Amino acid sequence: MFKVDNRVYMDHAATTYMDERVKEAMEKYWIENFGNPSSLHSEGRKARIALENAREQIASTLNTRYEEIIFTNGGTESDNLAIFGVVRFLSELFKDLGKRPHIITTKIEHHAVLRPCQVLEREGMTDVTYLEVGKNGIVDPKDVEASLRPETVLVSVMYANNEVGTIQPIQEITKVIKDFKKKKLEIENSLKIENLKFKIDENMPYFHCDACQAAGYLELDVKKLGVDLLTLNGSKNYGPKGIGLLYAKKGVQLSPLMYGGAQERAIRPGTENVPAIIGLAEALKNAQEDREKESERLTELRDSFVERLLKEIPDTTLNGSKDNRLPNNINVSFAGVEGESILLYLDEAGIACSTGSACTSESLDPSHVIMALGGKSELAHSSIRFSLGKENTKEDVDYVMSILPGIIEKLRSISAIR
Amino acid sequence: MFKVDNRVYMDHAATTYMDERVKEAMEKYWIENFGNPSSLHSEGRKARIALENAREQIASTLNTRYEEIIFTNGGTESDNLAIFGVVRFLSELFKDLGKRPHIITTKIEHHAVLRPCQVLEREGMTDVTYLEVGKNGIVDPKDVEASLRPETVLVSVMYANNEVGTIQPIQEITKVIKDFKKKKLEIENSLKIENLKFKIDENMPYFHCDACQAAGYLELDVKKLGVDLLTLNGSKNYGPKGIGLLYAKKGVQLSPLMYGGAQERAIRPGTENVPAIIGLAEALKNAQEDREKESERLTELRDSFVERLLKEIPDTTLNGSKDNRLPNNINVSFAGVEGESILLYLDEAGIACSTGSACTSESLDPSHVIMALGGKSELAHSSIRFSLGKENTKEDVDYVMSILPGIIEKLRSISAIR
Repeated sequence: MFKVDNRVYMDHAATTYMDERVKEAMEKYWIENFGNPSSLHSEGRKARIALENAREQIASTLNTRYEEIIFTNGGTESDNLAIFGVVRFLSELFKDLGKRPHIITTKIEHHAVLRPCQVLEREGMTDVTYLEVGKNGIVDPKDVEASLRPETVLVSVMYANNEVGTIQPIQEITKVIKDFKKKKLEIENSLKIENLKFKIDENMPYFHCDACQAAGYLELDVKKLGVDLLTLNGSKNYGPKGIGLLYAKKGVQLSPLMYGGAQERAIRPGTENVPAIIGLAEALKNAQEDREKESERLTELRDSFVERLLKEIPDTTLNGSKDNRLPNNINVSFAGVEGESILLYLDEAGIACSTGSACTSESLDPSHVIMALGGKSELAHSSIRFSLGKENTKEDVDYVMSILPGIIEKLRSISAIR
Repeated sequence: MFKVDNRVYMDHAATTYMDERVKEAMEKYWIENFGNPSSLHSEGRKARIALENAREQIASTLNTRYEEIIFTNGGTESDNLAIFGVVRFLSELFKDLGKRPHIITTKIEHHAVLRPCQVLEREGMTDVTYLEVGKNGIVDPKDVEASLRPETVLVSVMYANNEVGTIQPIQEITKVIKDFKKKKLEIENSLKIENLKFKIDENMPYFHCDACQAAGYLELDVKKLGVDLLTLNGSKNYGPKGIGLLYAKKGVQLSPLMYGGAQERAIRPGTENVPAIIGLAEALKNAQEDREKESERLTELRDSFVERLLKEIPDTTLNGSKDNRLPNNINVSFAGVEGESILLYLDEAGIACSTGSACTSESLDPSHVIMALGGKSELAHSSIRFSLGKENTKEDVDYVMSILPGIIEKLRSISAIR
């Protein structure tokens, strides 16, 4: 398997190298088939066909229809489009009603979900409920149920957490939302609320799910998941960077984040990035094809890695559920040691891992995810995430375990001297 | 020179194929140097260095500092960020003042500028002045001067029009704005307005310029241009698609379009698209290096093309200024013929051109640009844009001129029979 400079890269949740198959798939779209899909001539039509075939292929991977796929620049844009899109589309209506739309999300979402919610809250545009998670890093569907209100327009819960890898009970949350909708409709009917303005939309609340970390490991069938909006991107599953998508179920109405040309049903303007879209389609196809086998292989590797970490390094805590987590995620805290110091020593020894989300690496704040698991800030400061990938083997784990205990011991002795 | 299937591609304003040098520059960033620039390990740091070197190189091309370059997904996003960014950042302040910020733009801007302005207007967030242009397709700086108000926060005028290629007097507009600012400051000082709230910002109005069509043909030195905000992208100058930038002069404060990680000074979140950024830097470098020679070559080709069109095809009108236009742009109307029919016949003969902007090709509305030139809608419906590029030669023009007169004659005879 591919390795750069013989290094052990265990930070696949931050980003992955691009699969050779993806690179090959994109190859002829740089120079040969380079047209603008909106152009009417042959070059444009060829690009249009390639683009729509890619959309069709992705739709089939997600078990949905091609017109429900909106291409974006990446996970962050898709999350923002889902959240701002739903709320802004409804803002006039809610203003007329004298009410404020309500969002339910969790404390462990990616900042691309949390920040838009906070911005809308600050602007006085929405009320937001940030659900707690258990010590295992998993949301309780009962908490979603208890938080639903008539004016709830959106529930946004991630599929698998980017830091601790815990898998959220998406299908159970879907059930809770469906039951609520049914009940809401019954009440409205029994009260004979004829005034449509007060019914708002029987399809609300919409359910948005950020699945950026899930591709390649979990089921992506949106019908089975029952979600209305789903975020995916290319850079975490051996696809190209700078490309993502938002699945938006037919009927879900969104205000655009940007305005310009009429591309992507006028919801997302700008010349389509055809090579990257081709690459994303290929990456998602591979992810689904390799999913079962690779999940099985990595689950085994992960479990043996976790077992050795807990056994061979004293005062080590696994963050998040032991079993209900992504096959490739290991997140541990080593009491009394700074995560960043461990990272740097490991890096010197040729091992790449992270202290949490790369997107917040420049911040000195402790991870909001580990904190939400009920951890003390000390636990958050001493956490390390290993996220495995295709090229990682038992030999890699052996190598890490030949190095890491010594590093922890050394760092603890330094901090003891202090 | 490169040609696909021996076709004559004359739609470079819609998009260009990627230069081999750009492809080569990007090559090692797919698999070899693939890290997330926010990661702290070697892979991340290598990516960070490559990213910041590219930023530095672009800054030098634009004669500015690297911290003034914000990478985006493309021209549309950069335009939206400039317009929404400036207005939203100031909205609270203006609300407190009981005033509405004012924008000046032109009727011939790209929709990525016009639509954001219209949205802000509709939301009651701003007043917008849409300046007329002369029959030559050029804005009169005196009109900008006459429209400036104390509450004008932004002037947005494109560098070169995407449909008719006319070059706008950016430096003269800069002068008008500078004089206005000076006068404003003098008045404020003479009135002894001590309350800072009413002074707003002596650097306003900001001057934004969409330069997407200009790279490769015009001066990109932002100091010489005197602009505060400048939009550039990769897909029109032999660079990658899905990448662009906004130059934002130090001190220009912008609200983000999206929220998430702290990338790009927290103004533009999302994992940076390193390969595309590397490609953009290479494309802009090449554009500047080849600029003079290529502009000279294409100006000559353009002029002989226009001369032949006007001479050899009766009732042909050149849209926009004859001389003050991009070296690669030819936009003509053939009285009595639908532009789209011409396009399709030319396409069959192996020639790619367009009826106007690709971004609006699906709309049946006549071009807002040709209409703004004082054209009747008939003139707009019969317009054809040829936009030349690196691989086009005199032989290509000869070939087009061996085909086009026959097509026009044929289409006119059909429409005469009707």
